[in-house]
Amino acid sequence: MSELLQVTERTTLKRAPRRGSFDRETIYRILDEAFVCHVGFTIDQRPVVIPTAYARVGDDLLIHGSTVSRMLITLAMEVDVCVTVTLIDGLVLARSAFDHSLNYRSVMIFGKAKVLIDRQEKLAALRAFTEQIIPRRWDEVRPPNVQELKATTVLVLPLQEVSAKIRTGAPIDNEQDYELDIWAGVIPLKLSVGEPIADERLKEGISIPPSVLNYK
Amino acid sequence: MSELLQVTERTTLKRAPRRGSFDRETIYRILDEAFVCHVGFTIDQRPVVIPTAYARVGDDLLIHGSTVSRMLITLAMEVDVCVTVTLIDGLVLARSAFDHSLNYRSVMIFGKAKVLIDRQEKLAALRAFTEQIIPRRWDEVRPPNVQELKATTVLVLPLQEVSAKIRTGAPIDNEQDYELDIWAGVIPLKLSVGEPIADERLKEGISIPPSVLNYK
Repeated sequence: MSELLQVTERTTLKRAPRRGSFDRETIYRILDEAFVCHVGFTIDQRPVVIPTAYARVGDDLLIHGSTVSRMLITLAMEVDVCVTVTLIDGLVLARSAFDHSLNYRSVMIFGKAKVLIDRQEKLAALRAFTEQIIPRRWDEVRPPNVQELKATTVLVLPLQEVSAKIRTGAPIDNEQDYELDIWAGVIPLKLSVGEPIADERLKEGISIPPSVLNYK
Repeated sequence: MSELLQVTERTTLKRAPRRGSFDRETIYRILDEAFVCHVGFTIDQRPVVIPTAYARVGDDLLIHGSTVSRMLITLAMEVDVCVTVTLIDGLVLARSAFDHSLNYRSVMIFGKAKVLIDRQEKLAALRAFTEQIIPRRWDEVRPPNVQELKATTVLVLPLQEVSAKIRTGAPIDNEQDYELDIWAGVIPLKLSVGEPIADERLKEGISIPPSVLNYK
């Protein structure tokens, strides 16, 4: 059975609480489907929101970047951070303009991140970033060398103060609006995959690997 | 000719400045393609990042929501806000794990938002929200009534302190890695549109309208 996370002041849904979820399994399913998050923190008391790739490993969210990145230097000081992950699932077209909406699944994580120091743990984290984006790719490529590991900061944010917010399904119109002669419904949206484009400098005779063939 | 926006301390790209753009046309093209942003602000000195729909109208970004939304109440106090819009365009698969990347286009907006008071301007804003998500839908649906307008707060954020960050194209490997027998290239990604799903309570004889038929 999946675990229910503790609700805190910050993760309490002030609006539309029926859309909230504190179920760990539900939250992890969203985090495992996406791979880009928006990281919010403050610099000089002012908010900054930066998109970046992430990986979920167990009960942690990992983010990484160059050791000289302003975001990573700031977060490494263990300041408060809010990380939000959003998947867009559809346009919800109601009979009234007012009741138009979006179907989406989002996760918000509050906390403070810590720098990963141990070299083996860092290497495992870098593997996780690659696998979050494209499973099985890691074993096909050249692994990071000592300089590359040194040039990378990995931050760990525990998945403790977390909530999901989800909207699914049909539009919800005012009862009297259902009588109007107006089309209503949902247009599903999905991040979809195009044909792989081989690098121009690809050596001859190299075929598309399993990670790319199986990517969906 | 397109206008170059002024670069400020906050919009200076600290990392990979070659990926930055301060060209208004480039920025607006990204804002017009997307419709969901991540809004960052602080509550009790701690960051919060919330996904929400937006519309671009001229040199303003508009966001809206219920008058009792905590986000809108907070932003209405003209606090600092950072709004980030991100489009994911592809997975960039290099020969080394380290040089894996994403193709994306993102826009960051810094500033303070103001509440829109005028009823005609509010109505025009609500139209813009609908049109940003699905062009031509507004004329097909029931427009907002007085109560609905009253229940909605619209905020205007001027597009003054804005920058774009863009990565496109092939992976960039270390020169010696091009000799490795490893496939490299790009997997294009795109938010794509599924078949519209009519509402179960749709009145008989109502066909799919032009806005939905032409949506892409």
